[in-house]
Amino acid sequence: VSSLHSRAAKRISESTVRRLSLYLRVLQEASALGLDTISSDELAKRGGTTSAQVRKDLSLFGSFGKRGLGYSVPELLGSIREILGLDRTWRVALVGAGKIGAALFSYRDFQKQGFHIRVVFDSDPSKIGRSWGELVVRPDAEMESALAEQQIDIVVLAVPADVAQSLVDRVVGTGVRAILNFAPVKLRIPDSVALRNVDMALELEGLSFALNSRQ
Amino acid sequence: VSSLHSRAAKRISESTVRRLSLYLRVLQEASALGLDTISSDELAKRGGTTSAQVRKDLSLFGSFGKRGLGYSVPELLGSIREILGLDRTWRVALVGAGKIGAALFSYRDFQKQGFHIRVVFDSDPSKIGRSWGELVVRPDAEMESALAEQQIDIVVLAVPADVAQSLVDRVVGTGVRAILNFAPVKLRIPDSVALRNVDMALELEGLSFALNSRQ
Repeated sequence: VSSLHSRAAKRISESTVRRLSLYLRVLQEASALGLDTISSDELAKRGGTTSAQVRKDLSLFGSFGKRGLGYSVPELLGSIREILGLDRTWRVALVGAGKIGAALFSYRDFQKQGFHIRVVFDSDPSKIGRSWGELVVRPDAEMESALAEQQIDIVVLAVPADVAQSLVDRVVGTGVRAILNFAPVKLRIPDSVALRNVDMALELEGLSFALNSRQ
Repeated sequence: VSSLHSRAAKRISESTVRRLSLYLRVLQEASALGLDTISSDELAKRGGTTSAQVRKDLSLFGSFGKRGLGYSVPELLGSIREILGLDRTWRVALVGAGKIGAALFSYRDFQKQGFHIRVVFDSDPSKIGRSWGELVVRPDAEMESALAEQQIDIVVLAVPADVAQSLVDRVVGTGVRAILNFAPVKLRIPDSVALRNVDMALELEGLSFALNSRQ
């Protein structure tokens, strides 16, 4: 699977990756229920797509399932975890020790999925030096040295919008290649860096628009 | 603008609405800097798109800007706020008084943008009855009656994945037409209900995939 995966990686769209995550959840649920196999129909139905799409998505990464028998739940679960890079741990730095940062830090599934927060930064003197679990909040001035020293894979940015770009420029400068941004702002980053945004305000505005359009 | 908006609403894509939110932020920034006008080029550059796209998006809602002069910042700001339904307040219920719920509740911008949390529910007896600001956490058994009584527009679902679907079924049953879901699960809802998801785990898996593909 690995070599197919590497070769295919360049043409895998973000929406395909999102569907893989959804299939993963369906499979985890099926596994928890003790199911041995699952059909592409069932996987599609519970993942909110079509069975043709399921087969197309999975075919990008190898040959899974047997005609008429469906997919082996444990095998496909293992393969998707491997494809998504969830069969290992990732070293995460949290920039911003505010409310969102705290919610993230205490989110158990984060750790369970292999995302281990190794260092927390803030610029607020009243937060610096505080204990967060086994960690101590460090001043953001130490960010560059600490990201290298801790061999950080992923930076989670949970800071106000007006400081996000300058922080992300510093993070990118250290060679970090993956950023999860919670600041409600469109960040400029090089193509070589993977960026995902979690933007609650944007989603709320979408709901507000939908409600407004119907009145 | 309103009548154009209503007529156009059905063919407005989710990605157009997302770009409107981004234009809004650029305009808010421009306004804070005291700028009177902004060109479609500048709006595009700072919103991460092209000027042709900016003009196309805005043309769906009316006629804005003057050739060679650009857009009036306060006028376009007002119009986009109106289009997005941000010129009024929305009554919000929070279902789930855990860590994510607490982070949301204390998020000042939420209130500032017109999203007012009117009621909080949980099923955990140790949380029910606690004071959250001026509110008291109520048992989720009271959800149906309270949603109607409080004339709730938007329900924010901040609950574990395994209870999300049954809660959303109950919410939909009360006639609520907009849901913001934080549970890491694909919810099934009728087409008449607007649903947006904030799914941190999905975004993290996307980053993990990106890092994994490059190694």
